[in-house]
Amino acid sequence: MKLNEISSRTSEWFGGSGPLADVVVSSRVRLARNLAGFQFLSRCSSPQKTQILEKLKAAVMSLDLGDEVFYIGIDKAAVLDKDVLVERHLISRQHAHAKGPRGVVIANGEFFTAMINEEDHLRMQVFKAGLQLRECWEQISKIDDMIEQKIDYAFHPRYGYLTACPTNVGTGIRVSVMLHLPALRMTGQIEKFFAAAKSMNLAVRGLFGEGTEAVGDFYQLSNQVTLGVSEVEIVDEFTDSTIPKIVEYENLARDQLLVKQPEMLDDKTSRAIGLLKNARLISSQEALFLLSHLRMGVNMKRITGVSIPVINELFMLTQPAHLQLNSGKRLEPAGRDRLRAEIIRSRLNQN
Amino acid sequence: MKLNEISSRTSEWFGGSGPLADVVVSSRVRLARNLAGFQFLSRCSSPQKTQILEKLKAAVMSLDLGDEVFYIGIDKAAVLDKDVLVERHLISRQHAHAKGPRGVVIANGEFFTAMINEEDHLRMQVFKAGLQLRECWEQISKIDDMIEQKIDYAFHPRYGYLTACPTNVGTGIRVSVMLHLPALRMTGQIEKFFAAAKSMNLAVRGLFGEGTEAVGDFYQLSNQVTLGVSEVEIVDEFTDSTIPKIVEYENLARDQLLVKQPEMLDDKTSRAIGLLKNARLISSQEALFLLSHLRMGVNMKRITGVSIPVINELFMLTQPAHLQLNSGKRLEPAGRDRLRAEIIRSRLNQN
Repeated sequence: MKLNEISSRTSEWFGGSGPLADVVVSSRVRLARNLAGFQFLSRCSSPQKTQILEKLKAAVMSLDLGDEVFYIGIDKAAVLDKDVLVERHLISRQHAHAKGPRGVVIANGEFFTAMINEEDHLRMQVFKAGLQLRECWEQISKIDDMIEQKIDYAFHPRYGYLTACPTNVGTGIRVSVMLHLPALRMTGQIEKFFAAAKSMNLAVRGLFGEGTEAVGDFYQLSNQVTLGVSEVEIVDEFTDSTIPKIVEYENLARDQLLVKQPEMLDDKTSRAIGLLKNARLISSQEALFLLSHLRMGVNMKRITGVSIPVINELFMLTQPAHLQLNSGKRLEPAGRDRLRAEIIRSRLNQN
Repeated sequence: MKLNEISSRTSEWFGGSGPLADVVVSSRVRLARNLAGFQFLSRCSSPQKTQILEKLKAAVMSLDLGDEVFYIGIDKAAVLDKDVLVERHLISRQHAHAKGPRGVVIANGEFFTAMINEEDHLRMQVFKAGLQLRECWEQISKIDDMIEQKIDYAFHPRYGYLTACPTNVGTGIRVSVMLHLPALRMTGQIEKFFAAAKSMNLAVRGLFGEGTEAVGDFYQLSNQVTLGVSEVEIVDEFTDSTIPKIVEYENLARDQLLVKQPEMLDDKTSRAIGLLKNARLISSQEALFLLSHLRMGVNMKRITGVSIPVINELFMLTQPAHLQLNSGKRLEPAGRDRLRAEIIRSRLNQN
């Protein structure tokens, strides 16, 4: 498996299926782990980092993670390859831009990824489409146990798993869902969502994680507390209470639009498809914005003839690094805008 | 002929044909005249105005102006009817909103209109499609001569025709053309056009005359000097020099776009048609803007399957009063935006 083979298709967890998929794009559970007997990375020399990398790579690669598993040495990877991995949420921006020996293990279908020598020695993630946090947790927990049979994690009987940043100490878990909330924004209620998230001590981030703005009405919601509460409690709280409540608010807002402003709603979704099918130059920001409206229109059954998997595919394939890797060459922004518009146009006019 | 019969079609002079029609939408020659033996209107009593109206109406209606000629008493007309006449350039906004006995004579096809008791006792206009100022002048001059056989105009051997406003004294002529200059604006050269017009002592106005902004890249260009220069000189100057020069500049700008920014050009015109064919709510400003881009795209042969007459028809039929008169009822702005989008969508999707 090569990177340009995966870069031409959509990640499985971004395919548009799964429970509550109209609103919950995907679920993710991440665990932060560190090896016993090694210092945290900020205090490691390069040879020590190499040692950690070798040890963890061997442990993770020896697991049964499906038909194909591949490893990429991030310190030696080309910029464009790293950017594609970031756009696919397989590595963090920090991991792409860091220095020193580091890598990532990726399972086929991209349901699993393990960054080695990011902020912690090991950061593993399991992704699934729709609201499937329990399934993510069960799977990553099994993988975690299998790894623990091979190596020793830094673990404190009182504090739990030790991590480079104190915010991750304890369970080392981060539970997050990517939400599509166009109607809450359109009806002016998105601030309420932010306020509610804050009051529940949850973090809200944009499509590409920490520090990026929410574009195209996509929001990543994740826990911030990892100490003094079990993994199962966090997953249950998200699955049974937090996320269903937000989904309900979004669906109420969609119903409001249908009842009170159907014309405004249809205007926005129809304009989106009109522009996507006709524009010759589209920036990535505008593409996200328009595809978001289109996604809502299809999910609300106001637009027919376009499928959610096609829309999600376009979200992914029209991102800057994907465009360039798939076209086989570096492109200036104007060239990317042209190619992006071309891909969207031809894909949507096929339908 | 009733107003709602003419309001459902395009004026002949706005049909998109005629010399240099890609850039010159239409030509118009207007004459301002006053009756001898009567004071200017600002000093007239209502009975005197009625006398003037009767006299001029009889004179104009007795002429041979084609198959059908109709008269509308503006002082008794409904607001919506008056607004439709303004939108069709058949009467001025001032004539619509004035007080006292006044009216308009309109010939079939709308090539000729005569406002009685506007600013002057009589203001006649002849319209033609494309650059046809000489033809406009010949026709209005003949009509003027025929009227002069029936009544006496206020005429001074030294100053010429006397008019209520000194700017019209002399020939009483106003020669004007409606220009479509999208490429000059798109290439950032429209200010040069304004400066050139100013230096030639010409007035530039928007689509609806005095005091309105140019929207949709349409500009009315007209002479300001009426004294000390003959009608033929003014018409010749416009026809042989001024207008061909501006047409050349616009065409150069279009060529520039084709050579240097073909993608930007196609993006703008494709977006315009994408929005026009899909939007569910369109304001009149946005409609003018998008139809202007579409008109340019068709004239430059970058868009096929839409004809200029259809586009011009849409410019006219989607104006607020037209929308309401043709739908048979008063509409709030939101209702107009909906109906406007519906008309545009169904007309363009027929093609």
